Amino acid sequence: MEKSAVYHRPESEYAYLYQQDSVHLRLRTKKEDVQEVALLHGDPYLVMEDKWYQSPIKMKKIFTTDIFDYWFVEVSAAHRRLSYGFHLIGKDGENVFYGDRGIKSFSLDTLEVNENYFRLPYFHESDRVKTPEWVKQTVWYQIFPERFDNGDPSNDPTGTLPWGSKEHPDRTDFFGGDLQGVLNHLDYLVDLGINGIYFCPIFKAYSNHKYDTIDYFEVDPHFGDKALFKKLVEEAHKRGIRIMLDAVFNHMGYFSEQWQDVLEKQEQSAFVDWFHIRQFPVAPVDKDRMEEAEKLNYDTFSFTPSMPKLNTANLEVQEYLLKIAAYWIEEFDIDAWRLDVANEVDHQFWKKFYQVVTGIKEDFYILGEIWHSSQNWLNGDEFHGVMNYAYTETILNFFVKNNITVSMLSDGLIDQLMLYRQQTNEVMFNVLDSHDTARLLTVAKEDKDVAKMTLAFTFLQHGSPCLYYGTEIGMTGENDPDCRKCMIWDKEKQELDLLYFVKKLITLRKYFHPVLSYGELIFEELDDENKCLHFSRKTDEEQLNAWFNKGEEIQTAELFNQEVLMSLNTEIVEGKAQIAQNGFIITKVSQ
Amino acid sequence: MEKSAVYHRPESEYAYLYQQDSVHLRLRTKKEDVQEVALLHGDPYLVMEDKWYQSPIKMKKIFTTDIFDYWFVEVSAAHRRLSYGFHLIGKDGENVFYGDRGIKSFSLDTLEVNENYFRLPYFHESDRVKTPEWVKQTVWYQIFPERFDNGDPSNDPTGTLPWGSKEHPDRTDFFGGDLQGVLNHLDYLVDLGINGIYFCPIFKAYSNHKYDTIDYFEVDPHFGDKALFKKLVEEAHKRGIRIMLDAVFNHMGYFSEQWQDVLEKQEQSAFVDWFHIRQFPVAPVDKDRMEEAEKLNYDTFSFTPSMPKLNTANLEVQEYLLKIAAYWIEEFDIDAWRLDVANEVDHQFWKKFYQVVTGIKEDFYILGEIWHSSQNWLNGDEFHGVMNYAYTETILNFFVKNNITVSMLSDGLIDQLMLYRQQTNEVMFNVLDSHDTARLLTVAKEDKDVAKMTLAFTFLQHGSPCLYYGTEIGMTGENDPDCRKCMIWDKEKQELDLLYFVKKLITLRKYFHPVLSYGELIFEELDDENKCLHFSRKTDEEQLNAWFNKGEEIQTAELFNQEVLMSLNTEIVEGKAQIAQNGFIITKVSQ
Repeated sequence: MEKSAVYHRPESEYAYLYQQDSVHLRLRTKKEDVQEVALLHGDPYLVMEDKWYQSPIKMKKIFTTDIFDYWFVEVSAAHRRLSYGFHLIGKDGENVFYGDRGIKSFSLDTLEVNENYFRLPYFHESDRVKTPEWVKQTVWYQIFPERFDNGDPSNDPTGTLPWGSKEHPDRTDFFGGDLQGVLNHLDYLVDLGINGIYFCPIFKAYSNHKYDTIDYFEVDPHFGDKALFKKLVEEAHKRGIRIMLDAVFNHMGYFSEQWQDVLEKQEQSAFVDWFHIRQFPVAPVDKDRMEEAEKLNYDTFSFTPSMPKLNTANLEVQEYLLKIAAYWIEEFDIDAWRLDVANEVDHQFWKKFYQVVTGIKEDFYILGEIWHSSQNWLNGDEFHGVMNYAYTETILNFFVKNNITVSMLSDGLIDQLMLYRQQTNEVMFNVLDSHDTARLLTVAKEDKDVAKMTLAFTFLQHGSPCLYYGTEIGMTGENDPDCRKCMIWDKEKQELDLLYFVKKLITLRKYFHPVLSYGELIFEELDDENKCLHFSRKTDEEQLNAWFNKGEEIQTAELFNQEVLMSLNTEIVEGKAQIAQNGFIITKVSQ
Repeated sequence: MEKSAVYHRPESEYAYLYQQDSVHLRLRTKKEDVQEVALLHGDPYLVMEDKWYQSPIKMKKIFTTDIFDYWFVEVSAAHRRLSYGFHLIGKDGENVFYGDRGIKSFSLDTLEVNENYFRLPYFHESDRVKTPEWVKQTVWYQIFPERFDNGDPSNDPTGTLPWGSKEHPDRTDFFGGDLQGVLNHLDYLVDLGINGIYFCPIFKAYSNHKYDTIDYFEVDPHFGDKALFKKLVEEAHKRGIRIMLDAVFNHMGYFSEQWQDVLEKQEQSAFVDWFHIRQFPVAPVDKDRMEEAEKLNYDTFSFTPSMPKLNTANLEVQEYLLKIAAYWIEEFDIDAWRLDVANEVDHQFWKKFYQVVTGIKEDFYILGEIWHSSQNWLNGDEFHGVMNYAYTETILNFFVKNNITVSMLSDGLIDQLMLYRQQTNEVMFNVLDSHDTARLLTVAKEDKDVAKMTLAFTFLQHGSPCLYYGTEIGMTGENDPDCRKCMIWDKEKQELDLLYFVKKLITLRKYFHPVLSYGELIFEELDDENKCLHFSRKTDEEQLNAWFNKGEEIQTAELFNQEVLMSLNTEIVEGKAQIAQNGFIITKVSQ
């Protein structure tokens, strides 16, 4: 047995409370190296009395990647506390015990010592990672407010260009998009079927993207005012749509009162400790010398001089930001915060943030922008989920960029799923494109079938999917700023076939949300040669099957006892599905 | 290369801030499988501009166990943020890159993508794990107050037995030990050289061990009163001795006002939510039916009906306990809390506890009683260290119980060291015996040489050593209650040779605390056949060498350019040490 590969970590994504009295335990071993794993578990104070190590429970192999096998079991405990260890039988016949003191011989001497077991000392509901149920039923729609619709020309900034007048917007263009524009189209969104809106920043700021905040307590005057925003939230809520705002707490904008005060008064500024200033004087930004940003004497987002980094360890800054966090919930009833550059802000601050916002609204959703692995933010006291680029990247690589095999697709997805607890995976934020990336259809070289199958696959995964505005009607765009084109409202120019497809997909996702949120993901067949795969999602009550084909050969799926829910490039011939390239079929197993 | 063994975890004991601007990075691979590991690191925003992946830094192999090699490197970053990945070259010649998206080919395509790297997004001092410097210079002495000395017979409980009148104390005996007894012997402790006292509980309680608290705001009347305790702390502080008290927050005593109120008023009690009561009525403890404790309708410590478990998620309970935590620091100036059954209390409570106590005294020390692996309590916002039984168990197994090999000794120690950050290892609480275990000399079958070498080895390790009262004068005792005998004050009955040895050892430990706290631990030679080992402790400034011999053969150590600090069963012959069985020698390398 390859002992160096055997891995478990107590009180982590490998051992956690899923429900109040149910514990999930995972174990990782080398691929195809271990024939059987059994869990030994019982009360820490009854090892000798109960001899519970004599009653093993088999663990289930739930996933296999190119390197690892993953094993899983769900257990409970009468006295709300657990000692546990693993009995592994290698394919080579070797028998070992794995517990808190490492790998040992499988012998009575080992099994009778409580210290050899891992521990979950007590099932504290206060320590359990809890994630909002409503997010698991939500399909999101991301709006970049400056580009959704110009509903009120009276608040346009000077120099506003006519809507859609540039095929390729430049970095500093304004087109007059605003909140009234969103309000005007709420019924479009209802018709589309989405039930959550993620707004890029709406607070007063300098740029068109508003990530350089001037005043967190004001709606940007070019977008509208607070009364209008309040109305927007109310109207959205009436329609069952939740609202998520974007909080930029890593840095402030150059034109904020605080940073301007620093520029003016230097060491004498009351805000001198609000930032990370290494040396005085702090110079105003000279636009011609942006390339010297690396030599700045204050910390910024990336090397952007106009985005001075906030010192979130400063109690005044904390108080200020937490007041903002609370204000928009208490006064406007928003449902979620998306946190910009969340990884670069300190954990201590986010823990306070979590307390404040969930203290106001218990099922509030906190979403961090983190592109890398995020275990340390997802332990139940900071964020609920992150922008799941690390997951959807793999989906894009397979379905759109065609640069990985089917096995690499499943490997990539499994690697990410196994980083987090199940309740976390259920509320991850799955984006295929956003204001920070090229658009799906563009990456797909404008092949709508590719875009469709990619969306379909993503909607069948754990996590809450998000559509970037306009993706549903076939909008294109390269990387920022090109991905921020004006929304197309002229039906003649919309891809109505794609829109119809997306509506169906949203309906399916919402209708089958229990199995798609809570169900197991089972890779039934991975065919690297033919670039096609078959997987299922499964709870005790329900099962969906899906087949996706990226290869040139037509693939066949047996549909016995199944109802077809949705398909693309697929024909049913004599009870079998014939799936052509870039085709898929989703079915429901009849009960 | 055995890829399934390659392991790193961002923002954990594998990647952390050690000092404000210095990052420690660790990597684990299969034993003797990888010939070289290099770190690629640089600013996340400058991957392409700086091409820093072209400047690898070699990692050092610091430890090898039966299964793993451990690699280490310390780095910094000009902009306080880091992207990093590992370049591994297998002994089979295979070249791979290991980063946030797993193991990939070592190619430009991989290296130029920032998402492939692990991240330490920003160096936040607020997130850094900080541990008190003074603990690293402390040698502790644990006092079980009822058994140290009876300094004031006027406060003896009824039925107090004459001091030392029973060779084997029974579970419910009282001998009249008290705080005056400790005060009377402070100068003994100064002479011994210890500079920290860990007191088992001193608060008002029912039993002789006082782990069943009646009133956390009172000194037990049989021990003295608050004025006396205040004086004791002051006198100790005058002598440079720090004071640690024992806080029993997992459960309360049966005779506490709160539990008695529950027994009396049942559902109507104001304290009904202070505990974990599953059903009413709650019955008084019937001493004849203790064996049915498993069927209790309320949660307890273990299955002990007289120790009802506190509901630390209840805000009232939190407020109450935090008030106690603060009270003894603010009013009596204690320096540390040792937390009983700390693993069974929720993390959320301990995080608040940390805020409160370090808010009052910045360098306050928080020590948790946890016998198993404790990563989740040692991330900088709960405890600083734990009772390090998991570490000293291995030392006892080798030196005292003779049931493991030299290699198993080093494996066991390394396994534990690699569970925690370096600054945490520096303040772990290393106990060879305590009120919860048999005494060292008894386990050593009263072989004083074995006890001595075990103490010496322990004092040379990372972490803060603790002597259990009386160990220094050769006291014996089996498991609780036998390990709680009355301290022997009659010099005729003390093992003065052992006392002299322990004094020398404490002197050495305190004098060489920098290298023993901060120095690397290097296993220079592990000789399983002859049961002897040679290791060193090393900083840039200083190096200590040590040889220990458990085998029957005399072992030789070359002492060139070294000064002998301490030895046992060792003769120096022609500049070489001849170390007999149960002998050791400690030297200092001349600079």
